Amino acid sequence: MVRVVVVGGGAAGASAAARARRLDPNAEVILIERGSMITHAPCGMPYAIGGIVKSHEELMTYTPEEFEKERNIKVLTRTAVVDVDVDKHVVVTRRGETEERITWDKLVIATGAKPLVPNIPGADLKGILTLRHPDEVPDLKGHLEKAKTVAVVGGGYIGVEMADVLLDMGKRVLLFEMFDQVLPASLDPDTAAVVAEEMRGRGVELHLGEKVVEFRGAGHVNKVVTEKGEYQVDEVVLAVGVRPDVDLAVRAGAKLGETGAIYVNEYMETTVPDVYAAGDAVEKTHRVTGRRVWIPLAPTANKEGQVAGGNAVKGRVMRFPGVVGTAVTRFHSLFIARTGLSEREASQLGYKTQSALIKARTKAHYMPGAETVHVKLIAEESTGRILGAQVLGRSQVVASYVDVMAVAIQSGYTVSDLFFADIGYMPDAAPVWHPLIVAARVLSRGKL
Amino acid sequence: MVRVVVVGGGAAGASAAARARRLDPNAEVILIERGSMITHAPCGMPYAIGGIVKSHEELMTYTPEEFEKERNIKVLTRTAVVDVDVDKHVVVTRRGETEERITWDKLVIATGAKPLVPNIPGADLKGILTLRHPDEVPDLKGHLEKAKTVAVVGGGYIGVEMADVLLDMGKRVLLFEMFDQVLPASLDPDTAAVVAEEMRGRGVELHLGEKVVEFRGAGHVNKVVTEKGEYQVDEVVLAVGVRPDVDLAVRAGAKLGETGAIYVNEYMETTVPDVYAAGDAVEKTHRVTGRRVWIPLAPTANKEGQVAGGNAVKGRVMRFPGVVGTAVTRFHSLFIARTGLSEREASQLGYKTQSALIKARTKAHYMPGAETVHVKLIAEESTGRILGAQVLGRSQVVASYVDVMAVAIQSGYTVSDLFFADIGYMPDAAPVWHPLIVAARVLSRGKL
Repeated sequence: MVRVVVVGGGAAGASAAARARRLDPNAEVILIERGSMITHAPCGMPYAIGGIVKSHEELMTYTPEEFEKERNIKVLTRTAVVDVDVDKHVVVTRRGETEERITWDKLVIATGAKPLVPNIPGADLKGILTLRHPDEVPDLKGHLEKAKTVAVVGGGYIGVEMADVLLDMGKRVLLFEMFDQVLPASLDPDTAAVVAEEMRGRGVELHLGEKVVEFRGAGHVNKVVTEKGEYQVDEVVLAVGVRPDVDLAVRAGAKLGETGAIYVNEYMETTVPDVYAAGDAVEKTHRVTGRRVWIPLAPTANKEGQVAGGNAVKGRVMRFPGVVGTAVTRFHSLFIARTGLSEREASQLGYKTQSALIKARTKAHYMPGAETVHVKLIAEESTGRILGAQVLGRSQVVASYVDVMAVAIQSGYTVSDLFFADIGYMPDAAPVWHPLIVAARVLSRGKL
Repeated sequence: MVRVVVVGGGAAGASAAARARRLDPNAEVILIERGSMITHAPCGMPYAIGGIVKSHEELMTYTPEEFEKERNIKVLTRTAVVDVDVDKHVVVTRRGETEERITWDKLVIATGAKPLVPNIPGADLKGILTLRHPDEVPDLKGHLEKAKTVAVVGGGYIGVEMADVLLDMGKRVLLFEMFDQVLPASLDPDTAAVVAEEMRGRGVELHLGEKVVEFRGAGHVNKVVTEKGEYQVDEVVLAVGVRPDVDLAVRAGAKLGETGAIYVNEYMETTVPDVYAAGDAVEKTHRVTGRRVWIPLAPTANKEGQVAGGNAVKGRVMRFPGVVGTAVTRFHSLFIARTGLSEREASQLGYKTQSALIKARTKAHYMPGAETVHVKLIAEESTGRILGAQVLGRSQVVASYVDVMAVAIQSGYTVSDLFFADIGYMPDAAPVWHPLIVAARVLSRGKL
């Protein structure tokens, strides 16, 4: 009987454990989680903090008890893995004061990512909050509810979503981003400007191109110091990025990739025999460029976990083909989605690009309830191959437009292929010239 | 200077004329339209009849005057083309009592489709209405507003949309469909049952598997007679299908295809030199089966018109690659979309199929405002290639889900390819396991 030990109960780990169990009913599967929840969704944390989601426990898909009973997976919560011996096939766990040694035949490392804390004075003051685990929601909420003025440091997905939620909570919100646009890792300056306008319009005090250099306070933070000024605040949400949690992988002797995340092949095997890794801790292959990237997102983690768990018990039965960089966020009613490469990324990688940014409507011009949608497409000039897409609008369909583009991009579509794609129409669902088709047409520079 | 004559001012014709003008600023472009409107959108007629769209004139994208002024295209409205001489390169037009001969170098036939009228007794009675041209909206509206009870004959897209609109107008609505499901050309029985339940729940008296054999009345219809009974009605909306208007093409000596629509190659050339055809009058290639099909829809017409118009002035500069059968409709708040082959179509064509029909939600389980979505996927058993998709739900995103599938299907995706597609996620935009991914997983029968 094979024993599979999975470290980390988030998307990748829970998915790996469930898959191993499903493919091998005789395997012993043990899932070890540092916190109290498994199958938790950190992506939902802003909404649990803001109160749209009533309890952080709703962010779980399964409780540990359900996982144990319904799936016959042994779940150890509040249990940290503090060491690993790959020769003896053992992990050392700690729960409270108790250490235990657990042997394994196959090990899946799904240790996820953790928030970056910048190495600046005052970063260890109280009141400087990060979002990592749904467990921490009640505590975060407690801190933020008392605050009048909150600084959000970092204008990525979490920063943008937290700024939205904090406004809804009635706070004065200052957002600091060292780059001169929001969502610098995701959007180009032209689309980011649409988001910035929306944020300012709703009342966020947006400080772009303004790097935070120090936090000050007596025990508890009360001032954010940037290169340009000093700001009185009651609390700080630190959202300057995340990094892969590779401690256990390093202890196991697994190679790290060029991105600093765990190196795995398409079978989710690390460089150490019998040791797999999946989720936010590992790097992935980008399907547009073929390069190694680190893009930690939940749907990818789920699928990687599934591949790792299946291969752990059955050998190389599944392959993870990589990602194209699809991601979605929302500020108030504005949905923001992107896939592929941004124009800046493409340029940095040496592509000569063409792009088009259009404004269109989500329904036929004569139907009520249409929303404006901004579509940016980026293509390689020499081949017409589509490299990326960015879509923004006050409708959930924006995310699906980007899903269409994700499939088109990973299928190697040219601008012409997209123009002739058989995309649907009825007056209340889309204009007869769908915004994506219009964008393809504009991008063709008269050829379509 | 080349002269291009385009017959038909709808989607295909207007698109052809505009494209010819754009690619050859020196060409003389003449657009001939039987009615008073061009770039009209018959798909919007139900909503203009029902009053959601205030005036049928809103269904136009451009007025004839705008087309003449802004595009330098000569537009002849209320003008029928009654004959054609391909040797002399002449069409004969009639406007009122006046006949005129117009020579052409290139002719584009975009004569569209017309409603089928069944050959049964009473089919020529007054009060039996068909939807063809937005011109006719005021007249149709006038008839229907006075009625208390309206029979809709035919459960296709127009029948379903008109039933919805007539309920909104406060009418008692009886819908007769000879097949034992609604949308028989689009959906399988399992997904059609979801639509039927919705229609019955809203009050449509649905008579499925009930063929209309006669209309009765003294001058004006007052009774619908089926194989099963007789029904008192005030008006009848006849929506039993459409057929291609091929009269002019036949006069020109152009070959008709196996579907009865005009045969064209991928350049939109008919079998007659210098004569092109596009839109609802022509047959297309199905990109899944490679077969010739007749699926008359506006986005296809637009693109075919563009190809025909471009090639008419520049030679073979563009190719139309065909369709995958994407279509969308709506009953009340239920959006209904499909692409590829239905399971029945696939079986009839000899494919051995597997399918999955799942129910999922449009957002993360903990977010408010999620809607239920039904996703059916159909795949070829031996290869796993996805052949078709049907999606239903109370959200506009349903149409976009099907657009994702249209691109996946025309790219030859297998179930596994779909599962690993990098589709986006954030709690308010989609669940972390997207409904399409869940459907792929279920369809894999445990392989994913």
